[in-house]
Amino acid sequence: MPASTGYAPLMIDLPQSLRSRLQPADRTIDTLETPAVLIDAPIADANLRRWQDRCARAGIANRPHIKTHRSVAWALRQMELGAGGITVQTVGEGEVMADAGITDILLATNTLGEAKLARLGALAARCDLAAVADSAAVVDAVAGTARAAGSTLRVFVECDTGGARCGLSDPSEIAALASRIAGTDGLTFGGLMTYPAAGLRAQSRDALEKAIAAIRAAGLDVPVVTTGGSPDMWSDEGLAPVSEYRAGTYIYNDRSLLARGTAALDECAMTVLATIVSRPTADRAIIDAGSKALTSDLLGLDGYGMVLEHPQAVLYQLNEEHGLLDVSRCTTPPRVGERVRVLPNHACVVANLVDRVMIVSEGRLLGALAVDARGRSA
Amino acid sequence: MPASTGYAPLMIDLPQSLRSRLQPADRTIDTLETPAVLIDAPIADANLRRWQDRCARAGIANRPHIKTHRSVAWALRQMELGAGGITVQTVGEGEVMADAGITDILLATNTLGEAKLARLGALAARCDLAAVADSAAVVDAVAGTARAAGSTLRVFVECDTGGARCGLSDPSEIAALASRIAGTDGLTFGGLMTYPAAGLRAQSRDALEKAIAAIRAAGLDVPVVTTGGSPDMWSDEGLAPVSEYRAGTYIYNDRSLLARGTAALDECAMTVLATIVSRPTADRAIIDAGSKALTSDLLGLDGYGMVLEHPQAVLYQLNEEHGLLDVSRCTTPPRVGERVRVLPNHACVVANLVDRVMIVSEGRLLGALAVDARGRSA
Repeated sequence: MPASTGYAPLMIDLPQSLRSRLQPADRTIDTLETPAVLIDAPIADANLRRWQDRCARAGIANRPHIKTHRSVAWALRQMELGAGGITVQTVGEGEVMADAGITDILLATNTLGEAKLARLGALAARCDLAAVADSAAVVDAVAGTARAAGSTLRVFVECDTGGARCGLSDPSEIAALASRIAGTDGLTFGGLMTYPAAGLRAQSRDALEKAIAAIRAAGLDVPVVTTGGSPDMWSDEGLAPVSEYRAGTYIYNDRSLLARGTAALDECAMTVLATIVSRPTADRAIIDAGSKALTSDLLGLDGYGMVLEHPQAVLYQLNEEHGLLDVSRCTTPPRVGERVRVLPNHACVVANLVDRVMIVSEGRLLGALAVDARGRSA
Repeated sequence: MPASTGYAPLMIDLPQSLRSRLQPADRTIDTLETPAVLIDAPIADANLRRWQDRCARAGIANRPHIKTHRSVAWALRQMELGAGGITVQTVGEGEVMADAGITDILLATNTLGEAKLARLGALAARCDLAAVADSAAVVDAVAGTARAAGSTLRVFVECDTGGARCGLSDPSEIAALASRIAGTDGLTFGGLMTYPAAGLRAQSRDALEKAIAAIRAAGLDVPVVTTGGSPDMWSDEGLAPVSEYRAGTYIYNDRSLLARGTAALDECAMTVLATIVSRPTADRAIIDAGSKALTSDLLGLDGYGMVLEHPQAVLYQLNEEHGLLDVSRCTTPPRVGERVRVLPNHACVVANLVDRVMIVSEGRLLGALAVDARGRSA
C-alpha cells in the first residue's frame, strides 16, 4: 500500500454508477477509525470486467450474486458491464435491488411462510422474478402467491449435483417436479439451478445431463441451466450444459479464494483496516478487529485472516473486538499504534457487518459506499 | 413454546424502561418472516435481576457489559436494577449509551488513533468515562486526549491474569504503569482491570493480589479491581480482591453457557426463529438461518446451534443463508414449512447482525427492540 496522499475525490477513473453513490470523504485513510472495511475500487471493478469478459467468451450468461457486496452501486455496475440480471438469496435483497431499478432477478432459494410469500408476490409484481423449488410444498406455496398476485412466476428446480445442500438429485424426481411446475397455474418452468461442490464440476455436469434427459423425456424443454460457485469459476471443465453462471465473491475475493488459487493477492479488493492496540508479550500482538469485524468463518483455513504487512503473523483467535496474533515468526514484529490491513477469510459475511464500506484506491480514501442490503437475511 | 395466541401488547409485566422503547407489533409470531432473532423478555429480565441480587449479596459492584445486547433499553434497565454504571468495548458503544443518558461508563479496551482518540475526548467531556491501558503508548495517547479536552480521565491498568489476551502480567510492570498514570497530567489511576480465563479464577486472584501489593509498595491505592467473564460468574472461588464485575452474556445466555453449566435452558432468552425450507434427503433438513443469522462462532462446541424442537438434530454446517441439519437421529424429523427455534452458540455476535430483535413472551410477539449500537465496533 503506497503512503496516503490525502483526500483525492474522483481523481481516478471510477465508473459513474459507483461514483454517483459515493458518500464523499473529507479525510485521509490514515485518520479513519478502525476497524473499517476497505474496498479497493479499481481492483473490484477489474474483477467484474474480467469475469464479464470470460462469460462472453464462454458463451454463458452472467447473473452475478449480489450477496457478497449487497450494494446497489455494484449491482448496477455489474448490469452496466453486461450482466443480464442478478441473483439474490433473500427476498430482502431482492426488494433492495428492485428499489434500485433492477428488473431481472433470480431468487435462488426456497421461499415459505405467509408473510415472506406475500413479499415475494409483491416483488414479482414489479420485476421479472424467478424463484426456485426442490419440493412440491414449495412449488405449491409460490404458485399460490403468483396466482394471488395475478402474475406468472418462473420457477427453477434446484438440483443437488454433489454440493449436498438443498436440491433434488434423482433425475426422475427432478423431472416430476419440473412437470408439476409446468402444469401449475401461475408458474412456468424456468430450468435447472445447482450449486456444485468445489472440484466436482464434472460430476455436476453428469448429474445435470441426466436430469435434462429425464425432463426432455417428459416432454419439456429446459430453457436455462444455471450454476454457481466461485472456487471453480475459472475452470472450463464440466461447464456444458450450463447456460448461466452465478458468481458472487469474485467482486472482492478473499483469503479462501486466494488459498484455492482462484484469485491472486492483487485481485483481492477487500481488507479490514485495524490497529495494533497491544503487544503484551514478545510473541503476541492484538488488533482491534475481532469476530464483530472479521467473523469466525474459517472455510477450511487455519487462522482468521492474513495481515498483509506481517504475513508471518498468525491470527489464531478472535474475541468480539480483538484479534490475537502470534508474531513469533515475524522478522519485524508490529508495534503498538501501527495500522495494518487484514485480508479476511470470507468477504461476504464481512461486508454484511457494516453499514458502509470505505472505497479506496492506491491507499487513498475516496468515500463511503452503503451496504444497502446489509442484514436483509429475511 | 406454547402455541401463539396473537398480538398481546403490554399484557405482561414488562419493565417500563423496555416497554417505552418497544416498536409495537400488530402481527403474531407465526407470521414473522424468518430468520428472526427472538428475545424472551421475562427470561432476560429475570436474568438481570438474579445477577444484580447476586452482586448485592457478594458485596461487589455490578457494571454490566452492554456488548451483548447493544440496546439502550436493556442498558437503562440494568441501571434501574442497581448497576452503578456500564461497560462498553468500543467508543461507538459508549457514544450510543451516553446519548441515552448513561453517565458512568468504563471503556474496557486500549484506545489509539487520532480520530478515535478525538471521539474518546468528546465522550469523556459529557460523561464519567474511564479507560484502560496496558502500555505507556496508550497511557500517553489517552493523556493527550484528556488534556486537549480539558477533562480528567480515570485509567485502569489491564492485567493479564491467565486469559492471555491484552494486559500486563508482571507485577512490577503493572505497578510502573499505574505510577505513570498517577503521575500524568489529565489522568487519575482507576485501578486494575482483568478478564480471567474460564476456570482460572484462583490463578487470577493470586495474580491480582501480587499486582496490588506491588502498586501499594509504590505508594498508590487501588481504588477498584474489576473482573469479567460469564462462564465463572456464579463461582465464589477467587472473587476477592475483586470489587466490581463486568458480565455481558448473562442477559440472554446461549448454548455455550448452557454447555458450561452456567445457565439452564429455561434461562436462555435468545433464540433464532427459522423455517425448514428443504428436506432433500431422509437425513438432511435445511433451515433458512445460516452464518448471516447465527455466525460461525463455535466457542469450543460441536455444531452451530441447537434446534429446540429437535434436540437430536445436529446443525453441522452453515452457508450464508442456510443451516444444514443431520436429522438421522430424530424420532420425528422436521417437515418442510415447519418453524423452529435455534439456540445460538454465542448471543453477542447474533444480536449484532440485526437492526432489531423481536421481543416475545410465552410465544407471543410483543414488539421489536432496536439494537442501537449494532455494528458500532469502531
